[in-house]
Amino acid sequence: MGSQAIGIFDSGVGGLTVTQQIIQLLPNENLIYFGDTARVPYGEKSPETIIKYSLENARFLMDQDIKLLVVACNTVSAYALEELQEICRIPVIGVIEPGIEKVIQTAQDNQKIAVLGTTATIKSEIYQNKIKARLPLAEIIPIACPLLVPLVEEKFMGHPAARLIIQEYLRPLKDQKISTLMLGCTHYPLLKEVIQEEIKSTVIVDSATSCAEHVCAILDTKNLRRREQSAAQRRYFVSDDPIKFQTIGKEFLGGLIESVSVAFPFSR
Amino acid sequence: MGSQAIGIFDSGVGGLTVTQQIIQLLPNENLIYFGDTARVPYGEKSPETIIKYSLENARFLMDQDIKLLVVACNTVSAYALEELQEICRIPVIGVIEPGIEKVIQTAQDNQKIAVLGTTATIKSEIYQNKIKARLPLAEIIPIACPLLVPLVEEKFMGHPAARLIIQEYLRPLKDQKISTLMLGCTHYPLLKEVIQEEIKSTVIVDSATSCAEHVCAILDTKNLRRREQSAAQRRYFVSDDPIKFQTIGKEFLGGLIESVSVAFPFSR
Repeated sequence: MGSQAIGIFDSGVGGLTVTQQIIQLLPNENLIYFGDTARVPYGEKSPETIIKYSLENARFLMDQDIKLLVVACNTVSAYALEELQEICRIPVIGVIEPGIEKVIQTAQDNQKIAVLGTTATIKSEIYQNKIKARLPLAEIIPIACPLLVPLVEEKFMGHPAARLIIQEYLRPLKDQKISTLMLGCTHYPLLKEVIQEEIKSTVIVDSATSCAEHVCAILDTKNLRRREQSAAQRRYFVSDDPIKFQTIGKEFLGGLIESVSVAFPFSR
Repeated sequence: MGSQAIGIFDSGVGGLTVTQQIIQLLPNENLIYFGDTARVPYGEKSPETIIKYSLENARFLMDQDIKLLVVACNTVSAYALEELQEICRIPVIGVIEPGIEKVIQTAQDNQKIAVLGTTATIKSEIYQNKIKARLPLAEIIPIACPLLVPLVEEKFMGHPAARLIIQEYLRPLKDQKISTLMLGCTHYPLLKEVIQEEIKSTVIVDSATSCAEHVCAILDTKNLRRREQSAAQRRYFVSDDPIKFQTIGKEFLGGLIESVSVAFPFSR
């Protein structure tokens, strides 16, 4: 049982920041990653379409006999997690709940909490509602940051323009005491340093790290850790242009992606 | 015949820069605009899909009895213009050819010409090949500028970050004498001022203006101008979220869009 792989999917490369954290915490685990790069971005699609695509992606990974499924995408975690948990007979872990758990641990009721995300995630109000349910007295400040994903995908992370844009997005937080800031998008960990410099005394929670910690905890609880000591296998699949994925993906994974194969879990 | 409308379509709001120029040159013409905002962006889709969507959009406008069709989108002009010209019995005008004509008029053989566009347009090499065919001795410098569309759509045109990003993209032109710079994307006219400030002695050609001039010329040649002196009617249709289109569209059209209706030229 333990030797089966952990399956991870995202609409594109963003989920690789989650994968990086999983590799750090669980270097001995086999992994299969699927990035639905032919149909990216999911953020602007209807909930029905997001659910349909997510079930297809999950089916592709399930067919490879995985032991746990990680939904490494905020949009899918917001709209399709329940449907995925219904059809899969294995644990299905999204990125939102673990992130919120971490926020609850670090922030206290009565404090100010900022949530950064794509327009779709902020509009869904999932972070706002779930944090509010646990910390009813907290003031939650949601900020949609639509330019951060393109900036990261175009590798402008270290560019002075990225800092200016981040300063612009963080302007509503100026002169406020923000205890915790949630990075509600899997692309944002690549901008964590710049964001931290701009909002120094705030604790930054990112969904990648907290999701990986949750995966770790579930494997332990269910006694699902791989015991073999042979090198772990990590395989990457995408539905479009493996070269582009490999090139951009390096930044997200923080290391080389040895080989990427093309797979279509859907009829084209 | 002349009282029929001019039909214009684009994958989203970009074509409104072309529409703005058409209104300026032809204030007496009736217009029908269709923005396929439910299926935007086209840039990353396969040529077959781009052709299919374009034919559906054209059919929607043809059904409203238009006298001329403007393809106000570089991606569609690059991939589907011939197919559209085959099925339509009216003149079909894209944005690429008129832009190139203008480049040929302003630049001379032997000079350096820069072309800015989205990754898809630059990859298609359509501007490079068509300019090269007319000016075989010219040196053409293509520059993909993937961040400019999101910057414009998020209204960062006047933001210092936009200038920094433009400086970054124009870096390959530094210390070179560029005679003409082609803006090969319908979003870029909104950044024309900043680009001109960064590359002062270069003539900037934009597809919006040159396309509108070409529309004007065709109407005259074919004797298709509207003769009624009653106020011209301009109608706007989109396949998704009319409010968003109206809000962003204002910037592109340089004025208020009075009313936007929703229409689906495709089965959902």
